[in-house]
Amino acid sequence: MTDSLDDLAGRLQQFAIARDWQKFHSPKNLAAALAVEAGELLEHFQWLTEAESRGLGPQKRQEVGSELADVLLYLVQLATALGLDPIAEAEKKLALNEERYPVARARGSSARHSEL
Amino acid sequence: MTDSLDDLAGRLQQFAIARDWQKFHSPKNLAAALAVEAGELLEHFQWLTEAESRGLGPQKRQEVGSELADVLLYLVQLATALGLDPIAEAEKKLALNEERYPVARARGSSARHSEL
Amino acid sequence: MTDSLDDLAGRLQQFAIARDWQKFHSPKNLAAALAVEAGELLEHFQWLTEAESRGLGPQKRQEVGSELADVLLYLVQLATALGLDPIAEAEKKLALNEERYPVARARGSSARHSEL
Amino acid sequence: MTDSLDDLAGRLQQFAIARDWQKFHSPKNLAAALAVEAGELLEHFQWLTEAESRGLGPQKRQEVGSELADVLLYLVQLATALGLDPIAEAEKKLALNEERYPVARARGSSARHSEL
Repeated sequence: MTDSLDDLAGRLQQFAIARDWQKFHSPKNLAAALAVEAGELLEHFQWLTEAESRGLGPQKRQEVGSELADVLLYLVQLATALGLDPIAEAEKKLALNEERYPVARARGSSARHSEL
Repeated sequence: MTDSLDDLAGRLQQFAIARDWQKFHSPKNLAAALAVEAGELLEHFQWLTEAESRGLGPQKRQEVGSELADVLLYLVQLATALGLDPIAEAEKKLALNEERYPVARARGSSARHSEL
Repeated sequence: MTDSLDDLAGRLQQFAIARDWQKFHSPKNLAAALAVEAGELLEHFQWLTEAESRGLGPQKRQEVGSELADVLLYLVQLATALGLDPIAEAEKKLALNEERYPVARARGSSARHSEL
Repeated sequence: MTDSLDDLAGRLQQFAIARDWQKFHSPKNLAAALAVEAGELLEHFQWLTEAESRGLGPQKRQEVGSELADVLLYLVQLATALGLDPIAEAEKKLALNEERYPVARARGSSARHSEL
């Protein structure tokens, strides 16, 4: 893990240690918490049309930012707990996707995309 | 957004543009995709005990890393689509949590924690 | 719980007992499994437009039916584990929603709806 | 769909028609709403141990019942929107699982179970 996420990971670890919350932070529990926050993020969009979701007002955008933060905070803590580097994992996955979905065949096709 | 996540965001944007997939990538759809991937991440842990989840073998750990990557890739794309900086949002949220859960009162209490 | 769901609950309990799977079926684990299946259900819709989701072809419809079944099977098992009657709970909630969202004020308003 | 769930489905349809909410209730949106509610259900368990989740107090049990109801209400509405019978789908899936996981081989094995 590098730079800004590194920083965040360190601060989150101190946050949990100071509150004696590490006992709650098993990877199983962190994965559940991440899924819960992903649901709260989705809640903001559930009744919007796609077009509306592309044009959020400033307050809604801020609320979404706050939920997105919660997801990221649990993602970083889960990665730390498992000794994983999220950036390295993401780069590996992106490289794999570039191979799996060659531009020529994937262009504009939602069918291929939906396998992603 | 800074450094490594910046990089990733740029590559993901090029990936989607090259495949003409931006039309699928409304914030609403990206939030749904993120929740789907969060479910796939959780799937690896659903029948494990907490203790087992703290001691994953190398193959399982790699599979989890791959799902965690999927979550992060959608999170970064959603942030880009909304003009949000995930690191800045996460830091703001962490600062807020430090205020909300003062060490003295939060120490070891799952009750407080569960409001998080 | 009454009639058809009752039946299902009984068969699921026998299914788990016969395989000695009850040890895995803590309410915590069943709630996680339900969320995982809800993600698999959502996956079928993530890149579809709303209009497309209203006109699924027969194969896709069948796949969705199978995921919907998984959600219901875990929901029934979770209810049994906690001694809850899902139909009674649903009726209570529906009566509450009828009070909370009087027709006169709720008519056509997504804003009210989104609190649901 | 039979008996008690039938009833519920009819009342939910009237509820939505009376409020002119059917326009929001595309299968895509209902699947998202179901996933959001599954997250809220899971939230009650995220920091509990499995043992604690087996011994909920009366208030927590009631809160869980209310979230479970929300999941069921969206499940029934999604099934109605797609012309699916949830009980028939669940029975088909259970029969399939009985075939897939013969008692002799599945007994007590979380490995097999986790494919479920």
